[in-house]
Amino acid sequence: MTTVGIVGAGIAGLHLGLALRAADVDLTLYADRPPEDLAAAPLLNTVAHHHPLLERERALGVHHWPAAQFGYGAHHHWIGGARFAGRFTHPSCAVDHRLYLPRLAGDLEARGGRIEVRDVGPRDLGALAGRHDLLVIATGRGALSGLFPRRPEHSPHDAPRRLLCAGLYAGIAPAEPAAVTIGVAPGQGELLEIPMMSRHGPVTALLFENVPGGDLAVLNELSPAQDPALFRKTVLDKLREHHPATAERVLDDFALTHPSDLLQGAVTPAVREDFLPLGEDRFALALGDAHVVVDPVMGQGANIASYSAGVVAAGIAADTVYDELFCRRVARSREEVLLGASAWTNLMLDPPPWLDELWRGLAADPRRADTFTDGFDHPDRQWRLLATRRRVRAFLSG
Amino acid sequence: MTTVGIVGAGIAGLHLGLALRAADVDLTLYADRPPEDLAAAPLLNTVAHHHPLLERERALGVHHWPAAQFGYGAHHHWIGGARFAGRFTHPSCAVDHRLYLPRLAGDLEARGGRIEVRDVGPRDLGALAGRHDLLVIATGRGALSGLFPRRPEHSPHDAPRRLLCAGLYAGIAPAEPAAVTIGVAPGQGELLEIPMMSRHGPVTALLFENVPGGDLAVLNELSPAQDPALFRKTVLDKLREHHPATAERVLDDFALTHPSDLLQGAVTPAVREDFLPLGEDRFALALGDAHVVVDPVMGQGANIASYSAGVVAAGIAADTVYDELFCRRVARSREEVLLGASAWTNLMLDPPPWLDELWRGLAADPRRADTFTDGFDHPDRQWRLLATRRRVRAFLSG
Repeated sequence: MTTVGIVGAGIAGLHLGLALRAADVDLTLYADRPPEDLAAAPLLNTVAHHHPLLERERALGVHHWPAAQFGYGAHHHWIGGARFAGRFTHPSCAVDHRLYLPRLAGDLEARGGRIEVRDVGPRDLGALAGRHDLLVIATGRGALSGLFPRRPEHSPHDAPRRLLCAGLYAGIAPAEPAAVTIGVAPGQGELLEIPMMSRHGPVTALLFENVPGGDLAVLNELSPAQDPALFRKTVLDKLREHHPATAERVLDDFALTHPSDLLQGAVTPAVREDFLPLGEDRFALALGDAHVVVDPVMGQGANIASYSAGVVAAGIAADTVYDELFCRRVARSREEVLLGASAWTNLMLDPPPWLDELWRGLAADPRRADTFTDGFDHPDRQWRLLATRRRVRAFLSG
Repeated sequence: MTTVGIVGAGIAGLHLGLALRAADVDLTLYADRPPEDLAAAPLLNTVAHHHPLLERERALGVHHWPAAQFGYGAHHHWIGGARFAGRFTHPSCAVDHRLYLPRLAGDLEARGGRIEVRDVGPRDLGALAGRHDLLVIATGRGALSGLFPRRPEHSPHDAPRRLLCAGLYAGIAPAEPAAVTIGVAPGQGELLEIPMMSRHGPVTALLFENVPGGDLAVLNELSPAQDPALFRKTVLDKLREHHPATAERVLDDFALTHPSDLLQGAVTPAVREDFLPLGEDRFALALGDAHVVVDPVMGQGANIASYSAGVVAAGIAADTVYDELFCRRVARSREEVLLGASAWTNLMLDPPPWLDELWRGLAADPRRADTFTDGFDHPDRQWRLLATRRRVRAFLSG
């Protein structure tokens, strides 16, 4: 019987584990802490799950927060004063991962997946490889996060392009009907406003993507635990100045829901090699943030991690030997979607002037705005629409 | 309207052209001679069309020689004395390309594809690129055959591994039921005996794959036009000595059907780059023998050329801009099948000793012999079964 070891208990590792258990593959998932501890952890992210991910949840029997009830169906864009909306063909849905991940870890254990809590460092990989036919590294945290070499041709940045200040807030009147609002303050960064299901019930997630050195970078220096009033006032001031589309729906009781419902940080985008030999015909395969890290501005991270987990699970089921040929096949299968998400996100972080043609075109054409919005479900297709000025023009005129 | 130029009028160019015309793409095919001239040319090859190729013919409406009538359903293997047979799930079919290609060229013209007879050399590419949105180089002959750089990691040979002596013969009692017989004379080379439809009606194609310097290499030095009796006698002697499985069915009237029904030559296997920039945002895409040349021993050449044409046609239909992103997408889509065919064929040309385990295993297990035979339809899957000793053992024990 094939046995697979997965290091990392985020959405990548859990979706892979659940898919492997559905195929009756023996499985151990190595987690750096008990999954139930996540409930009390600081905010992990504000990612929305798009339709392809939700379809995988349905197929795995873990779609616990029905998108029809908790989700949303549109994006509102404010880009330097221009405004347009696009509708999804199928709804997306955001659930706090501090609810989501422990629930799925429980599902995995109920289906016979072992979860072993231990730290795994580079020196442990040889021993773990001896216990499994294949080792999958699915953590972007800790000692293994840099294990796989960066692919420089797809990793243009060696430092973060944005300072992230993500939090859950009460006191923002939701868009009607439910929608994500994407605001771009040219030169200052972006704001993503996301209706999210949390332990408090429905809340509004605000993901500030602030340009380092810009006017909103101060949001990463304030502590709501130390001075909640100053934090609240500064967020409000910056909202009103740079992100009026959201500010206009702020109510009097606007507040961070809890000091722990905040994430201040930054990521350096990177595309890393797909696999590493571990000796004796054993390989470690990279998954999720261990493989491709994208800035969260386009909300692709969890979606491509789950997508990649699906590709890996299908590859494992279709093969019997987990050697370099297997690893190269997985790499080839998932590359277009992963590189598409990475390249599209990087394009948005440093938007070239010709992208203004796109925004004007989408504002003038609701049908194409819908296509663009559906592109959040299909980053490979999105990248084919947006990769170059020539492609943008073909999209707008085609 | 998209316009595509195709250089080369073999099966790669014709299948691509027919698929593009089905998608209403404007098309010019540049041929080095009038397709009808092929009828009187020397033998082009002895390739059989396998089921996926026949399915493409059906989809294109050019399956003029029904496989149920003209085809065959099994392979008989003689390898160093061991004998086994494998059945195809779906029949394969071999038709002399001197009948096949002119017929399809006529279909293409009837469907609005232009065929322009002219020599195209490297210096013509710039001008042709200006006439089309995309140029596809689909010829392994003449001045363009070396246009795309070899990929050394997939091109282990810089000289032919076999001397090919392919001919059409009367006077061989066909296997019953119809089958291809593959004989391996260790150290001397292979013989493929193929039931083929020709202008003479059903004949037997013999493809001698002779090791240079070996006992059968003399077949490439004799001319049946100059000395038909010596040619016939030598072929018969070599058959009896090295390929008894075919020799035992030779009848008194055994003879080459016509001096022109012979091809003596050799190919150097190579995997070449997928595309080249031609300047001003135009690209040339490699197809067929311009891209991947395999020795004919496993009969994959025409099959992968047609497969690749199908991938290119689908890629053209799915995109609007034929830039580097498009080319890379095509390259990624077709790579597994093409590399699989190339690597599998190269493995068979220099069989490692552990392949004997495979032959013994297949001789002992008709079900796996059928799987191996069906692998001629799916070179990617075949390569996953055979790539390493570990994989062969997994195949035989799985």
